[in-house]
Amino acid sequence: MTATLFEGIGLLYTGDPAREEIEDAALVAQDGRVVWTGPAGQAPDADERVDVGGRAVIPGFVDSHAHLIFAGDRTAEFAARMSGEPYTAGGIRTTVAATRAAGDAELATHAGALVAEMLAQGTTTVEIKSGYGLTVEDERRSLEIATGLTDETTFLGAHVVPAGVSADDYVRTVTGEMLRACAPYAKWVDVFCERGAFDGDQTREILAAGIKAGLRARVHAGQLGPGPGVQIACELDAASADHCTHLTDADVAALAGSGTVATLLPGAEFSTRSPYPDARRLIDAGATVAIATDCNPGSSFTSSMPFCVALAVREMRMTPLEAIRAATYGGARALRRDDVGVLRPGSRADLVVLDAPSYVHLAYRPGVPLVSRVWRDGKRVL
Amino acid sequence: MTATLFEGIGLLYTGDPAREEIEDAALVAQDGRVVWTGPAGQAPDADERVDVGGRAVIPGFVDSHAHLIFAGDRTAEFAARMSGEPYTAGGIRTTVAATRAAGDAELATHAGALVAEMLAQGTTTVEIKSGYGLTVEDERRSLEIATGLTDETTFLGAHVVPAGVSADDYVRTVTGEMLRACAPYAKWVDVFCERGAFDGDQTREILAAGIKAGLRARVHAGQLGPGPGVQIACELDAASADHCTHLTDADVAALAGSGTVATLLPGAEFSTRSPYPDARRLIDAGATVAIATDCNPGSSFTSSMPFCVALAVREMRMTPLEAIRAATYGGARALRRDDVGVLRPGSRADLVVLDAPSYVHLAYRPGVPLVSRVWRDGKRVL
Repeated sequence: MTATLFEGIGLLYTGDPAREEIEDAALVAQDGRVVWTGPAGQAPDADERVDVGGRAVIPGFVDSHAHLIFAGDRTAEFAARMSGEPYTAGGIRTTVAATRAAGDAELATHAGALVAEMLAQGTTTVEIKSGYGLTVEDERRSLEIATGLTDETTFLGAHVVPAGVSADDYVRTVTGEMLRACAPYAKWVDVFCERGAFDGDQTREILAAGIKAGLRARVHAGQLGPGPGVQIACELDAASADHCTHLTDADVAALAGSGTVATLLPGAEFSTRSPYPDARRLIDAGATVAIATDCNPGSSFTSSMPFCVALAVREMRMTPLEAIRAATYGGARALRRDDVGVLRPGSRADLVVLDAPSYVHLAYRPGVPLVSRVWRDGKRVL
Repeated sequence: MTATLFEGIGLLYTGDPAREEIEDAALVAQDGRVVWTGPAGQAPDADERVDVGGRAVIPGFVDSHAHLIFAGDRTAEFAARMSGEPYTAGGIRTTVAATRAAGDAELATHAGALVAEMLAQGTTTVEIKSGYGLTVEDERRSLEIATGLTDETTFLGAHVVPAGVSADDYVRTVTGEMLRACAPYAKWVDVFCERGAFDGDQTREILAAGIKAGLRARVHAGQLGPGPGVQIACELDAASADHCTHLTDADVAALAGSGTVATLLPGAEFSTRSPYPDARRLIDAGATVAIATDCNPGSSFTSSMPFCVALAVREMRMTPLEAIRAATYGGARALRRDDVGVLRPGSRADLVVLDAPSYVHLAYRPGVPLVSRVWRDGKRVL
């Protein structure tokens, strides 16, 4: 099949720990895969050429935490919060009501528009959670819709206990009938382990049931206060503990000593005006860090990985290199994927051309739409 | 001439204090001007129709503070600062050296690209300063290039004292030969009144000379520490005092009691990791507030007014309404313009369609490129 040579790459950020940056680089893609990367002068011949004019090339972003299956809008809640009202998990129920009332086509169109918006900002892999249905059928159809948009689907029936149901009854449903209905459409099981949502025992029970049904675990942990979520995630070898805003020393040690990624979601802190996670403490301890958008209508309605990279540098004191790594390689680790978030022979040809000479500009030029061209599976999509 | 009816406007933010918001609105433009705004049901007939499908429409942003005539890049300085080094005015000299070495065509192409980038983000009026030349000829050609891009050109020879020249000699040049060379290309005169740049006496002398030469005054004041800049701006009836990060009670009172706008530049605080200006104190005192990008390669390399609106809400506790007002009407006041930053009969038909139902989404959806269509002077430009 046709081999395409990407040339004139001023700086290639590969996401590959073995060789993260190549200046004056080239890349060859064929059949949707990367087949060669290296210095421009050593590039092999190819059938087609794409000259990126000295710009930087990065792997497509891997957004490993997004809640895209919902209806309705929480503009008024956002405006009230910006006037001083605190964020609580309770607002989720507003979106649940709107989501239940929406038809499948409406939910699919809306989620598809968000995925397209993400693609236009360089995100070529996105995880999508259920969690605004909270009935067997609404969770099932949320996940069925998600499978039309990504392979990385997550069953989050345990987002919050819905109104009018006891917590015990709801956990029984989530681990029983709802799990059976949802498992065929889901790769992951997730729990919002937080005061006001699910406690440690409930979290363990739900994750264990999901794992038994063939799903893999990830956990919302430590967003609004410290809790048992991180320890449970590490014990169960969850792929990721997400938020990690409030961590104990033991939590940091557990993350550093495990294969569980600490996924930081600075868009949530931006949009809830909360203190940011201490990324430096995690990185310095040796934990693998990812950043993701947490795209959802309540606490973080951004779909922009470039924005999250800029926040990671400004607010979490990550270096620009650590931030781009977390948004590509880190996100892939949080999904236990080796084929995305990196550009090396064998990986998916998911490439983003930035209208800038370096990935540093994602932080140096905050808010500016620098993503100029995107290829996914070797096909031009922007 | 052809009249165009913009219909299906879910929410029209007009920027006009007399009637700021109209739900379910329409707007008619003709000959590059707005000729009618009002409720959709009362819209007059027109030759052409543009249906914006329920989206929000706002006036084009007025970015009243931008330094676009320069060459070179300060990525390394940015990365060092993010690792803890403080921002000082001295870095300006790096850009001065690169700018002096660049040809006119290079400077014009680069500035034109930034103006195009701004337009794609909804900015239809931009002020452009000189200040990276700092010789008579380099300042003159900077302003000549700027006149090709905007009517709002600002002579900022007094940006910093260049290396190898005494401050006294430089002020003599700025107020003499340089002013004579630059005045034909400039509408405004500006001074960076700051420790390490120009003190109060020098600022007064330079502004007075500029005013005598027919220019109008604006001042960089209180960015890095308190100083005399705001008082001088108000005394001289400058259109704007810019930055206003460090203000005394007397400064706030002076701004509230004058026609001088307080122009806040939150991109600079974001990119220098500095405390933000106290917008609430200014608004609550009755001052007119504008927000602008301060786009420049050192302290704020963003060209994004939507990003600055989001920062204004998150970091400066402005309401979404106060922030959009500051980015449109406020910017126009900071340039003493009545024809832009508003959409009312007689104003310029500079319209932005947001891919959102409200301007609130500029803050609610930070980092997301929501600007979907732009008209300037009644002509579609995006």
